[in-house]
Amino acid sequence: MSATIEILPLAKKVKVRKKAFLSEALREADVPLSLYCQGRGVCGKCFIEVMDGKLPFFQPGEEELLKRAGLSPAHRLACQFVVESDLRLRIPERSLLGRVSVLEPAFEVQLSFDPVIKKYHVLLPRPEIATAEAELDILLQAIKSVPLRVALPVVQELPAVLNRSGRQVTAVVREGKELMTVEPGDTSAGVYGIAFDLGTTTLAAELVDLASGRTLGREARLNSQAAYGADVVSRISLAFEGPGRAAILRRAVLSDMNRIIRALAASAGLSPDLIQAVSVAGNTAMNHLLLGLPVDSLAVAPFNPVFSTLPDLPASELGLEIHPQGKVYIAPNIRSFVGGDTSAGLAASGFSEGRTTALYLDLGTNGEIVLRKGGKLWATSTAAGPAFEGMNISCGMLALPGAIYKVEADLNGFRCGTVDGAPAKGVCGTGLIDAASLSLERGLLTPQGQVTTASRTIPLTGSLALTQKDIRELQLAAGAVKAGIRMMLEANGLKAGDLEEVMIAGAFGSYLSVEHSIRLGLLPEVEPRLVRFLGNASLAGAKAFLVSFPSRKKAEETAAKIEHFSLASRPAFQEVFVSSLEFRTWK
Amino acid sequence: MSATIEILPLAKKVKVRKKAFLSEALREADVPLSLYCQGRGVCGKCFIEVMDGKLPFFQPGEEELLKRAGLSPAHRLACQFVVESDLRLRIPERSLLGRVSVLEPAFEVQLSFDPVIKKYHVLLPRPEIATAEAELDILLQAIKSVPLRVALPVVQELPAVLNRSGRQVTAVVREGKELMTVEPGDTSAGVYGIAFDLGTTTLAAELVDLASGRTLGREARLNSQAAYGADVVSRISLAFEGPGRAAILRRAVLSDMNRIIRALAASAGLSPDLIQAVSVAGNTAMNHLLLGLPVDSLAVAPFNPVFSTLPDLPASELGLEIHPQGKVYIAPNIRSFVGGDTSAGLAASGFSEGRTTALYLDLGTNGEIVLRKGGKLWATSTAAGPAFEGMNISCGMLALPGAIYKVEADLNGFRCGTVDGAPAKGVCGTGLIDAASLSLERGLLTPQGQVTTASRTIPLTGSLALTQKDIRELQLAAGAVKAGIRMMLEANGLKAGDLEEVMIAGAFGSYLSVEHSIRLGLLPEVEPRLVRFLGNASLAGAKAFLVSFPSRKKAEETAAKIEHFSLASRPAFQEVFVSSLEFRTWK
Repeated sequence: MSATIEILPLAKKVKVRKKAFLSEALREADVPLSLYCQGRGVCGKCFIEVMDGKLPFFQPGEEELLKRAGLSPAHRLACQFVVESDLRLRIPERSLLGRVSVLEPAFEVQLSFDPVIKKYHVLLPRPEIATAEAELDILLQAIKSVPLRVALPVVQELPAVLNRSGRQVTAVVREGKELMTVEPGDTSAGVYGIAFDLGTTTLAAELVDLASGRTLGREARLNSQAAYGADVVSRISLAFEGPGRAAILRRAVLSDMNRIIRALAASAGLSPDLIQAVSVAGNTAMNHLLLGLPVDSLAVAPFNPVFSTLPDLPASELGLEIHPQGKVYIAPNIRSFVGGDTSAGLAASGFSEGRTTALYLDLGTNGEIVLRKGGKLWATSTAAGPAFEGMNISCGMLALPGAIYKVEADLNGFRCGTVDGAPAKGVCGTGLIDAASLSLERGLLTPQGQVTTASRTIPLTGSLALTQKDIRELQLAAGAVKAGIRMMLEANGLKAGDLEEVMIAGAFGSYLSVEHSIRLGLLPEVEPRLVRFLGNASLAGAKAFLVSFPSRKKAEETAAKIEHFSLASRPAFQEVFVSSLEFRTWK
Repeated sequence: MSATIEILPLAKKVKVRKKAFLSEALREADVPLSLYCQGRGVCGKCFIEVMDGKLPFFQPGEEELLKRAGLSPAHRLACQFVVESDLRLRIPERSLLGRVSVLEPAFEVQLSFDPVIKKYHVLLPRPEIATAEAELDILLQAIKSVPLRVALPVVQELPAVLNRSGRQVTAVVREGKELMTVEPGDTSAGVYGIAFDLGTTTLAAELVDLASGRTLGREARLNSQAAYGADVVSRISLAFEGPGRAAILRRAVLSDMNRIIRALAASAGLSPDLIQAVSVAGNTAMNHLLLGLPVDSLAVAPFNPVFSTLPDLPASELGLEIHPQGKVYIAPNIRSFVGGDTSAGLAASGFSEGRTTALYLDLGTNGEIVLRKGGKLWATSTAAGPAFEGMNISCGMLALPGAIYKVEADLNGFRCGTVDGAPAKGVCGTGLIDAASLSLERGLLTPQGQVTTASRTIPLTGSLALTQKDIRELQLAAGAVKAGIRMMLEANGLKAGDLEEVMIAGAFGSYLSVEHSIRLGLLPEVEPRLVRFLGNASLAGAKAFLVSFPSRKKAEETAAKIEHFSLASRPAFQEVFVSSLEFRTWK
């Protein structure tokens, strides 16, 4: 009792048992069908065209969806179609599952488009006197949903919304578990979220269209907490002084985030309360401070955090000014010093799923290092300080227009490239690394970090120059990263040459010179083709948590299974660190 | 590969496959074991004593639970015990599943004790530097729980609670889904809830100990909304006038409920914020007004409610002054005029599960009528007015001390029994029915309701007497109920004589005289032994929703499947109603 299904334009043929749903048959044939509403026949996204074979009657609501989609009467929803006979089908492009790439520039990792918030536009039947069903039940039946969590104000306003809209409404459902709100009319195109990378030094964010997976805008600003200390440790120390101080830090970053929310909404011409989901990838200290959690335990042994994974929190409880029922997801922490920024980056890059021996590095104020070997993962963190982000450097700056991001050798000295080609105003992390490496090569700098020029400075361009102190900052930053990588490789019986892949996330983007980094010893000596730049992988992961809901579960599983490689508990660390301060290629 | 298990003191023998958990084996043997923590080995409530057979090693945490319980070393947790060989066991009384009866006076329906909020007392291990696990994860592992929803303040306070208590804490878990709070020390004995019967005229409530299922106290007070109209229709009309009026009604009943909460807590010597769960059984209009939902649709065709089933709501959102994370469950509405009071009563009485042909009547300001036939249920409602509660009767009163609740024939007239034997102050519903029936018998009253005495009053005792208007009120109330029952029976091809059971819930308690009710035509003519009095079944159902969590699901299923028998949509109703106004036994 089977039927043959020929699938165009894929030129595939499959045999399926009769009475099966066509959507199941297509899944077996590996056709990536869009099943936005999980096959409930509500979203109208899986229409297929019947070219040859018996056309079934419409299921309730199906014809309405078909008309709304503007397709011919030969279309049917695959999820409602019971196979009775042989068929020849065409799958329209619009019915294929969307894939999204969250990394920029495009990386080959593609996630299935399955946003955390979904909207269903429905026309509700009028209640009849004989059945007199409850309005909320009529709505749930229309979206074929199980009972959902729902906040009281949504129920209170439901009758008025139905009245105002002639019962044409859009139900907004979060994670298939909560009826967030019911909007009058068809608002299914307008679902928005904001992904945050909550860095110690910089906040970056993207406004994401959850109906399409596209990024609509980007914003970045310095973390105002920086006024209270450049690195994580100084912030924790301040918070340590009392709850009042922690509250100051909390308010500072909340105010930054709310400014970013307003700015992103304004440039897209949206009201901020159209934003219904936020995700935040930040290191453990940053997310603890944001949530108002005590950070004491992050600073003293055994250095454990208060939480690793948390369910979505109400934005209103947190203090973020978005939709009143909006929710905030915090990327899971791996440990105290390997936080949600890393779990987000691992999710975006697919690093946790690979099988080769590989390193994942996120070089910011903290250097996070993840080693993968034989399918197992180890993570650690090392305090690099803000030098890589251009901070604590006399002429340092973020990679903004005018920042020297690239230094090349020139007959007369250095040739400096600036962001946007603007007049040079300062140097950012990648420029600093280039300059130091070239100085080392030219003898302006010893491997021990001594500036050998008469002026005790390394001139870059115009009046910009690096000082002896600047070099020391870089030395400490690079040494910390190098020591972490070295200890982790050694503990697992690995040498630099065993690495098959090195992924680099972080503010550097793809501007980091692999050659210069290897020369300074910041990176282990590997073939440059093995090094891949992810850009801001934390931000990409935060976006993944909005547009591809299953990536949250994956990140939580990764965070739970990853081994913690504690540098702090290893007596050898200080020694390895000191021996890593020299600028020299790894042996 | 099986083993034989002999169970004392039940003198049962069962064969089970080896490697099975003992708890499974005992379930197959129908031993009602207490599995409060669902077999996770956390609660220590399923210890059995091994009399003969191999004693296994302790599982992690098991020895600590054993010591805490003060049992001998021959005890093991049944849910952790893997059967390897033949055994002879003794099941201590304490390990049997508690059963609770929520009806008063004790009715044979027993519910399994499975409270909505459970507490787990645990000693948390200290985090170690090598693993540095998150505090929240350590807690969830100790209670062997999946990740739970948790509000931010609970996470914020977790480290301080752990510190203060030397890591001995009690986790409070709601419905196995939410970590409501973490309390220092062992507070597992102190879990409280309040069940409300939210009547149109009266509010009744019980303080329930969720650790034992016992009722600790009762309170009742008049619904302050009564000042704005005695019946549901007048309240709806007022709310109709504008949101301001609806808000007045809402505040009135909230204030009543908060007074009751404070009173119940005070008499038990508890702080109100120890109350973590509330359940409310009220008719549809009452629960809509309480929740601030529009009641317009309850008053105009098609008379449909806004909701039938709602998930738990935060008490703080609703305005109830209990624990800050406390939740409120609203008994599901069946339809507009058959509400949560009825679904609660059906749950408490087990009426929805019976198989005989039966009637369930809840006679209050509204008369709810449920018919059961062949396993199917039909429900309707009829507006009786407040006469049965002693309201709108010239000398009427609630069944409080001094109320004439019983009238018997006497040579010289009537002999009146009062509540608590106090001097007569007025008459309540059951007294009114007795007096009218006896007056009919003696010719003081015609079947048409005419008072035939010279004074046009029916003297009761002292200066108390019923007026012609009082009799008219009773006539309307009884006629409405009679008409509803008549139409429902007729529509299903039934006669009074077909009824095998009549359950009567409501304020009457067991003081209603079946004989007098039949004589007046309020009840169909059935053998008195078929009539059973449930007392306040709505309140009992509200209690069931606290102490036996599965009863919520059952009530929701009943509410969804019950057929609505709409009197309003039947043209014959007015005629049947008018012909039901005569005081006479059903033919």
